[in-house]
Amino acid sequence: MNFTPISDIGRQALIDRIKKMCVNDTEQTLIGIGDDAALIASEPNHNTLISTETLVEGIDFDLSFHPLSHLGFKVITLGVSDILAMGGLPKQVLISLNVTTKFSVEMVEEFYLGVKEACTFYNCDLVGGDLRSSRGATILSVTATGLVKTGLVSTRRTAKTGDAICVTGSLGEALAGLKILLRERKFWEENPEASQPDLENWKEVVAKQLMPKARMDLVQLMINHKIKPNAMIDLSKGFLNELKELCTQSNAGAYVYEAALPITEQTKDVASEMGELASAYALQGGEDLELLFTLPEDAVEKAFEILKDITVVGMIRPASEGIQIQKFTGEVWEIDSDH
Amino acid sequence: MNFTPISDIGRQALIDRIKKMCVNDTEQTLIGIGDDAALIASEPNHNTLISTETLVEGIDFDLSFHPLSHLGFKVITLGVSDILAMGGLPKQVLISLNVTTKFSVEMVEEFYLGVKEACTFYNCDLVGGDLRSSRGATILSVTATGLVKTGLVSTRRTAKTGDAICVTGSLGEALAGLKILLRERKFWEENPEASQPDLENWKEVVAKQLMPKARMDLVQLMINHKIKPNAMIDLSKGFLNELKELCTQSNAGAYVYEAALPITEQTKDVASEMGELASAYALQGGEDLELLFTLPEDAVEKAFEILKDITVVGMIRPASEGIQIQKFTGEVWEIDSDH
Repeated sequence: MNFTPISDIGRQALIDRIKKMCVNDTEQTLIGIGDDAALIASEPNHNTLISTETLVEGIDFDLSFHPLSHLGFKVITLGVSDILAMGGLPKQVLISLNVTTKFSVEMVEEFYLGVKEACTFYNCDLVGGDLRSSRGATILSVTATGLVKTGLVSTRRTAKTGDAICVTGSLGEALAGLKILLRERKFWEENPEASQPDLENWKEVVAKQLMPKARMDLVQLMINHKIKPNAMIDLSKGFLNELKELCTQSNAGAYVYEAALPITEQTKDVASEMGELASAYALQGGEDLELLFTLPEDAVEKAFEILKDITVVGMIRPASEGIQIQKFTGEVWEIDSDH
Repeated sequence: MNFTPISDIGRQALIDRIKKMCVNDTEQTLIGIGDDAALIASEPNHNTLISTETLVEGIDFDLSFHPLSHLGFKVITLGVSDILAMGGLPKQVLISLNVTTKFSVEMVEEFYLGVKEACTFYNCDLVGGDLRSSRGATILSVTATGLVKTGLVSTRRTAKTGDAICVTGSLGEALAGLKILLRERKFWEENPEASQPDLENWKEVVAKQLMPKARMDLVQLMINHKIKPNAMIDLSKGFLNELKELCTQSNAGAYVYEAALPITEQTKDVASEMGELASAYALQGGEDLELLFTLPEDAVEKAFEILKDITVVGMIRPASEGIQIQKFTGEVWEIDSDH
């Protein structure tokens, strides 16, 4: 890849290039990148969702092993995931990128290639943002908007005693991927003459870490088939943290079966190689960007039939019972549900 | 002020405190802080505006002289200003705050006091955001949404030859304030035993730097009195930069009279103390957060009558003439309007 310093072409020319890369397709975006603010047509019978978060290099992502296009895709996924977790579909995204001088024009474009790919994948428009300089660490900020039909929103606050606790996909994969990437980087640092690490055996977990997909497929099915969770949250900070948050906001407790947690073979292999417990990956590993939701018991059968890629891992209980995890051994581990 | 480490109470407890500080008043915000995304009621006959930017300590702000509550107010002002510059009124804001360990609970609360004050001032709701850790530099990201009546939006793209170029308030004040603050900080670093610097004589320019107000007053008047600029942009990167941007997007040129630039006495005094040109402050100084807009000539008289705090500084010309500044001396300075 060439390295054209950003100062060679200037900030505005670079923004113009990004604008050309990200032409918007949806009719709702009246004005996208390039003005003070984006202009979005409003829709009746829907409410707007909006969410934002900021990621810092060295804390939230690592450029030494994260290809820029994958990072661009992942940042959009993080924004979109918050919209999906409310039962809505994403519509617009904005990206603020604050880069250090080690970033070239080509690197910024590489990043936006991933952003564009994600926008196509999630059927949303990049409508704006900002490009500024940073010192020390690259900073990524994503804002996502979405629409949800009036009455179809799923918050964190309304889980009911007796609800089945469901998760989509599998748990702990992104953490397993991170463990592999960190190990390979360490090996490579200690053996600089070694060839590029072979990640073929760990493809799934590494892909989940570098370029996870938010579960728009399942939220779209929920909308089409009128499957409405009583409560929903996305799994960005790990299953246990998110379950605690959902229980606190719903003033509820939970009973979870460790044996029910969905864990892939590859995640188990990683845990075993690392001498760690796969169930700990599943309970605590962040960034899976799957969904955790609760369903009234009589809605579970239909949900299984339609959504397929879900697992029931426990049940919502009264707040007084706290959060309890029944371990493989039958022993029950009690967790304080308070923040 | 006490210094309670954030780890003492935890991230979630701190978010809860912020949530309590920032209870939302407007009916449009159905769900604010605390879920995956905020939920906003949609309005017919309006379009939604949205904008975001990220500021980094040491580049975009300086905690050594910026009181945290003022910084909180200023960040909201930056977001709101982008909405106003499109002819809309602000509705919701989101803040992402990434803090280093030198930030205490009290400091975060102090920051949000300013955020809350600004939300009241601009009649908008803080509906969400994120709180994470950073290393090295504190990072602030603001997202603002607004509404604009269908057909009343003012972009950067539609300035017309013959339009009067107007600015609100005065120019170069924020830069003058920054010069004073930097000088006083240097003095204080070199004379650590000296008492706190006396900024009484420089109150206006320092206030403009630390806690500027976006011109919602004037945009509200424009809406009420159907004064619709052909083009508008906010002055965050300096008059000349913003004029260039507006001309490029409108495929236009401009003729500006240096003598017409509105500069306060205090700004002139600062420039004179620093041995610099006040007109250079006015042309290049950033962060005034005033508005630059263009009006058809026959709309200028009414605009003066209603808006009062505006100045005509020049005229939009064909793109072929580029951007020309007529200096005090009569000499004409030509500026390339291309990026």
